Amino acid sequence: MRAPQSNLPQLAADILLRMRKRAPRVHCITNTVAQAFTANVLLAAGAVPSMTIAPEEVAAFVSNSDALLVNLGTFDAERRTAIDISVSSGRQRIPWVLDPVFIDRSVARRDYARALIGQSPAAVRLNRAEFAALSDGTSELEDLAGYGSQHNTVVGLTGPTDLVSDGHRHAEIHNGSPLMSRVTAMGCAGSALVAACLAVEPDTWAATVAGVLLLGVAGEVAAVQARGPGSFSFAIIDALYELDEQMLLQRARVY
Amino acid sequence: MRAPQSNLPQLAADILLRMRKRAPRVHCITNTVAQAFTANVLLAAGAVPSMTIAPEEVAAFVSNSDALLVNLGTFDAERRTAIDISVSSGRQRIPWVLDPVFIDRSVARRDYARALIGQSPAAVRLNRAEFAALSDGTSELEDLAGYGSQHNTVVGLTGPTDLVSDGHRHAEIHNGSPLMSRVTAMGCAGSALVAACLAVEPDTWAATVAGVLLLGVAGEVAAVQARGPGSFSFAIIDALYELDEQMLLQRARVY
Amino acid sequence: MRAPQSNLPQLAADILLRMRKRAPRVHCITNTVAQAFTANVLLAAGAVPSMTIAPEEVAAFVSNSDALLVNLGTFDAERRTAIDISVSSGRQRIPWVLDPVFIDRSVARRDYARALIGQSPAAVRLNRAEFAALSDGTSELEDLAGYGSQHNTVVGLTGPTDLVSDGHRHAEIHNGSPLMSRVTAMGCAGSALVAACLAVEPDTWAATVAGVLLLGVAGEVAAVQARGPGSFSFAIIDALYELDEQMLLQRARVY
Repeated sequence: MRAPQSNLPQLAADILLRMRKRAPRVHCITNTVAQAFTANVLLAAGAVPSMTIAPEEVAAFVSNSDALLVNLGTFDAERRTAIDISVSSGRQRIPWVLDPVFIDRSVARRDYARALIGQSPAAVRLNRAEFAALSDGTSELEDLAGYGSQHNTVVGLTGPTDLVSDGHRHAEIHNGSPLMSRVTAMGCAGSALVAACLAVEPDTWAATVAGVLLLGVAGEVAAVQARGPGSFSFAIIDALYELDEQMLLQRARVY
Repeated sequence: MRAPQSNLPQLAADILLRMRKRAPRVHCITNTVAQAFTANVLLAAGAVPSMTIAPEEVAAFVSNSDALLVNLGTFDAERRTAIDISVSSGRQRIPWVLDPVFIDRSVARRDYARALIGQSPAAVRLNRAEFAALSDGTSELEDLAGYGSQHNTVVGLTGPTDLVSDGHRHAEIHNGSPLMSRVTAMGCAGSALVAACLAVEPDTWAATVAGVLLLGVAGEVAAVQARGPGSFSFAIIDALYELDEQMLLQRARVY
Repeated sequence: MRAPQSNLPQLAADILLRMRKRAPRVHCITNTVAQAFTANVLLAAGAVPSMTIAPEEVAAFVSNSDALLVNLGTFDAERRTAIDISVSSGRQRIPWVLDPVFIDRSVARRDYARALIGQSPAAVRLNRAEFAALSDGTSELEDLAGYGSQHNTVVGLTGPTDLVSDGHRHAEIHNGSPLMSRVTAMGCAGSALVAACLAVEPDTWAATVAGVLLLGVAGEVAAVQARGPGSFSFAIIDALYELDEQMLLQRARVY
């Protein structure tokens, strides 16, 4: 993992182009704190969000979508019903991403996340504490790889350094900004972006790397312009909108 | 419709002045994605938002309000109950606006919207796909006019060009910015602004034109300052706050 | 109250330092309109928000938190259950703040707020109309002092001038900006900041003064940079993030 994986920034640029061309629909079952920011991140990148959780219609929305995001940040009865319907109606046909928000703080939520892993998410995006709760493992790369291999999923662990592994292939991403941890729902929006990448790229590992990388590079560009987390929160959306191959190839640090 | 309707920008400016003077209360039953942005758009324009949906109190809030917005973007059981209570307690006394979000994606939602049309909304604000689902018609002006006439409501169809018709009078508005479609809840906030205009202007067609025009001109002003959809999303709020007669008369393109 | 209370700005600066060092967890049961802005205000100041209301897990979240915010802005059945669980599981161990949003508009909500006062909130943050509904009193300082004394709580009344009283000690804060009333959830976020201050300062009156003062000074700094309420809404978050002892001592006007 020491040498740069120089093909990945180019692949992320290609995925971004496809996203802007195809405007994939991403259905997001996500927490109420994250909804608006997540929708704006998807729109800036070129995808089209929808967010209903009503049991009467969520299957119809999922069946017209190109990817699904399941975020556990609001863990109420209505969302759990919506998740069950969405995952079972969507998983045979479209990729889905699990974002097990705060499962380190609640056993009920952790157990629910563990059960969802059996429903074949294409990728799981989480932070260190959440990975520890999910896997009983550490956030070392070998643990990620072992978990990804065992459950046949891609693990995308974000933090000061991002790690992405499917058990066989690994990437370390050194982009981003400390301000990303000072804006609520940044991780949630990152998971939505991974889902949007999965909608246009069948290689689930490459798509997850791309989603994490796009947000990291956008965050780096935004940090140059921002005074603090307030201005950063919209500058990262502007940066995603402006992101192009040249910026990606110039700034990406993927190992 | 070729000649500019030069009285309408002046009327919109008058309505905006009245809004700032009277600070009308607009009760919004709207989706959780749109709530904060909608509230900030109303506050910037001079209106006062409230957003509760609890069945115990929604009638009390509506009875103290000057207009009502019913947005179907979150279509859960609690909101449907709130809508039923609000429309039946408010419609005899205050104008209400229907925003049938995404009814092109779900039959249950479309049927619910069609039933609500029978409850005499003063105006319906929607996009082309939603109008097609609502009316089984195209988005040509004659279809809008026919629909408005048949249901005794004003139809405000927004998009690259905005069309407003009550069946007898028509307006085409050529303001706005492509960035408006890249910010979530822009249409929802536009519907709320129409409701705020209806609160201070009894001519429902003129009020709907004004609401659509105010947002379009503010969007045009904001686009000059914005780098992308992130900065645009707050610049349009600043522009609404700063909007005055001179800016309206100078920029409005209403035919 | 005529002479400046010159020790209070220094104390607020100390509380802010402690907040950044300890990163207290603040569990917020708050309305869906306010959630994202509240979370971003807490993160900017150095605290860590959580916001779940699911009955299965809210007690677990509260038991891992350092302070609790109860905001009545969304008054649905699920939130009332969450409030009951949270207050009874948390109040023996951590300070909690009541924000009785809009109780002047609904008798059901007002009666619920009055019952909560018996559950020993460390502080109540509200505006003039809400205080009148809660107490049947005016918003004169003697009424605040009487209410605080009778119910053994701190009353923080915000508006053009902010008043904070526990019945024995009083402060008048002359900071802030008129733009604060043009951004939704500003009061809600202020209550969350008071909760974060209470998490690191046992003197409940001083902590409430500090929370109100930090937001007021940040608002004043933000108003210098903002064009309108849109840019103000993120500039105040940047200002909170940048706030330091020097800015506080220079700008605070506490009497």
